[in-house]
Amino acid sequence: MNERSPTLIPDTGRGNQAAILNAALEAFGEKGFYGASMRDVARGAGTSLSNLYNYFPAKADLLAALLRMANDELLSRIQAAVDGAGRRASDRLRAAVVAHVGFVVDHQVASLVALSEIRYLTGVARKRVVAARDSTQGLYEEIVAAGSASGEFATPYPDDAARNIVSMCAAIATWYHPGGRLTPEQLAGQHAHYALALLQGPL
Amino acid sequence: MNERSPTLIPDTGRGNQAAILNAALEAFGEKGFYGASMRDVARGAGTSLSNLYNYFPAKADLLAALLRMANDELLSRIQAAVDGAGRRASDRLRAAVVAHVGFVVDHQVASLVALSEIRYLTGVARKRVVAARDSTQGLYEEIVAAGSASGEFATPYPDDAARNIVSMCAAIATWYHPGGRLTPEQLAGQHAHYALALLQGPL
Repeated sequence: MNERSPTLIPDTGRGNQAAILNAALEAFGEKGFYGASMRDVARGAGTSLSNLYNYFPAKADLLAALLRMANDELLSRIQAAVDGAGRRASDRLRAAVVAHVGFVVDHQVASLVALSEIRYLTGVARKRVVAARDSTQGLYEEIVAAGSASGEFATPYPDDAARNIVSMCAAIATWYHPGGRLTPEQLAGQHAHYALALLQGPL
Repeated sequence: MNERSPTLIPDTGRGNQAAILNAALEAFGEKGFYGASMRDVARGAGTSLSNLYNYFPAKADLLAALLRMANDELLSRIQAAVDGAGRRASDRLRAAVVAHVGFVVDHQVASLVALSEIRYLTGVARKRVVAARDSTQGLYEEIVAAGSASGEFATPYPDDAARNIVSMCAAIATWYHPGGRLTPEQLAGQHAHYALALLQGPL
């Protein structure tokens, strides 16, 4: 974690829970959902297996909690950026992508886990996480729809554009290295450009 | 597998090896690299654990073999499509993306495993798979560079465009459902459009 990175998992006073969630994030990031055991998480959190089960009865509960926290933070960052960006769809899209890339850079492991491990959730836990993820994509869909209606965006395929913008931002988690060729700000600026370019009309 | 989908893992006469690789693909697709055990693979292949270890001494060897096969098939499909697409960079890019999307749709599980499990490879196995993946991205990079030089593409950020096009195509594996709103051909056509749009100049 660097200084510009707020903690994803706040210490709410229930220190055990924050420690458990941080340990789970580390374990899922390292070994994946199936590879990480509850024992790994308990050990990482410095607590007992029985205490861990008190907080989280199943490993899927841990993954669901982490993915919800990550998505809530992503969503609130994007929402705040969009709210502060004025009324033009292109300004709102640029702000959304800059916030999104900032989140991925700040919370790379959580972003990677969200990308690769969501497929292991099932049932209600899956539905809730998918709904949270869809809310983020929904923000982009609203911006794309508004910009298409106003004529700012000329893409013939507005319906699927939002998903591709989300995919581009999310994929950064799979290759980003802090200290690489581009600063986080340059990376964000580039991706804002790519997102706007993606919405251009027939060539 | 449907009829338009050639088999990723050919039965070379060494039936055991093909059965093992198919079982490994299924196991990694279902449980991930860490979650799937060599026992799962042997059981899925209908062979003994000791015979499995004869073919593949370590689980990482299985993952590396699968990812190499998947990437080789992807690369050869894209290369063939590009070779048949004439000289214009935009035609070559369109052909590459159509071939790429076709691969992801035909081999969705392999594409998903390649996307989410490559991070678990280490050492030489990782280097070889990353090199194969880089070759695919390299094809896109060549097309983007040629189109930028000729003036077909006006993007101010050609260097990172190829990676984003690859990310968009690869991400299809995470959400595609056969029989969804778009046919594979429509999906491919849309993504070819998005890729070309992505390379447009300042807005």
